[in-house]
Amino acid sequence: MTNQRKPRGPYRKGVERREQILQAALEVFAQHGDRGSSLQEIADRVGVTQPALLHYFGSREELLLAVIEQRDTLGRHVSAETKKPGDIAAQAVRHSMDQPGLIRLFVALSAAATDPAHTAHSFFVDRYQNLTNLISSGLEEGQRAGQVRTDEPADQMARLLLAVMDGLQIQWLLDPSIDMPAMVATFTRMYTAWLPASA
Amino acid sequence: MTNQRKPRGPYRKGVERREQILQAALEVFAQHGDRGSSLQEIADRVGVTQPALLHYFGSREELLLAVIEQRDTLGRHVSAETKKPGDIAAQAVRHSMDQPGLIRLFVALSAAATDPAHTAHSFFVDRYQNLTNLISSGLEEGQRAGQVRTDEPADQMARLLLAVMDGLQIQWLLDPSIDMPAMVATFTRMYTAWLPASA
Repeated sequence: MTNQRKPRGPYRKGVERREQILQAALEVFAQHGDRGSSLQEIADRVGVTQPALLHYFGSREELLLAVIEQRDTLGRHVSAETKKPGDIAAQAVRHSMDQPGLIRLFVALSAAATDPAHTAHSFFVDRYQNLTNLISSGLEEGQRAGQVRTDEPADQMARLLLAVMDGLQIQWLLDPSIDMPAMVATFTRMYTAWLPASA
Repeated sequence: MTNQRKPRGPYRKGVERREQILQAALEVFAQHGDRGSSLQEIADRVGVTQPALLHYFGSREELLLAVIEQRDTLGRHVSAETKKPGDIAAQAVRHSMDQPGLIRLFVALSAAATDPAHTAHSFFVDRYQNLTNLISSGLEEGQRAGQVRTDEPADQMARLLLAVMDGLQIQWLLDPSIDMPAMVATFTRMYTAWLPASA
């Protein structure tokens, strides 16, 4: 990270401040979820005023969405670290369990955003379309490599994987004793090719 | 239904009135979802006052849960009508799509109920445990009959099926062009035994 070319001057300061706020929001939401988190607490953590915070993120809503987006990005980083394709999703889910507040936030916001009048509606429409495309490409690659079963369409299995992750989050919040990563791993084995092709 | 032994007298009237209210609530919620539905509209439909309605269902909340419970029961009726085991879930989902208001209601309420302080919390904890047991028994039967794969545990596949249905509802509300029943059917094929055993 330190070797990356960074923006300079006042703009650079703005970018850094924005990242600090996002990080603080991520931590506060991860800890308290949506309802228990205040903009004031986030502002306090960064050492700015609430109006200053709103200069970077126009509204509480916008900050929430940035946090969800950041969470997806973190999930992808975690994913990239895993070696075996089947572990990716289970690993991302295991990582997400360290931040139950973000899971609560995501469940509440994604449900509310199904209302076409909700400000986050188009954000979530795009999110699912983009993630479907991303996962679908990965599964198609796996199909070509003989690792993923070819008797079912990749795009449907991609949407099923997203559905599994969303649905299990609800079940896990209701009953934290269920083993989310194990069930995601079960699902990934269900889309594995029956007989591994020789490479 | 007409041949069933029914309760008599004032109690019977109460049972019938309760059923009328539940049916009206089902229709109103199915049409408008949670936010667009008022107790007054439900009361008007049955021809009772709002206090009379609340005599049968102590609160709006209680009526909502009775509607969700009724929806699960209807889903099971639809399920029982299907012949092939793999079709059951897809059929239930196809049926549910006729009542998008109930899907919206379910998505909103199940998300809110993940909060342990929510009045519907224990209702939903029990709902998932009971449905998991029910589906799990069916899958175990399928495993013994050689129709369901035996390399993954039935209870995990049961929870995955519930997760798939919940997760796809969210995706479908966000993008009604996705083919929910087809994707549920894909999932049920994924838990089908690789090679049908001879019976």
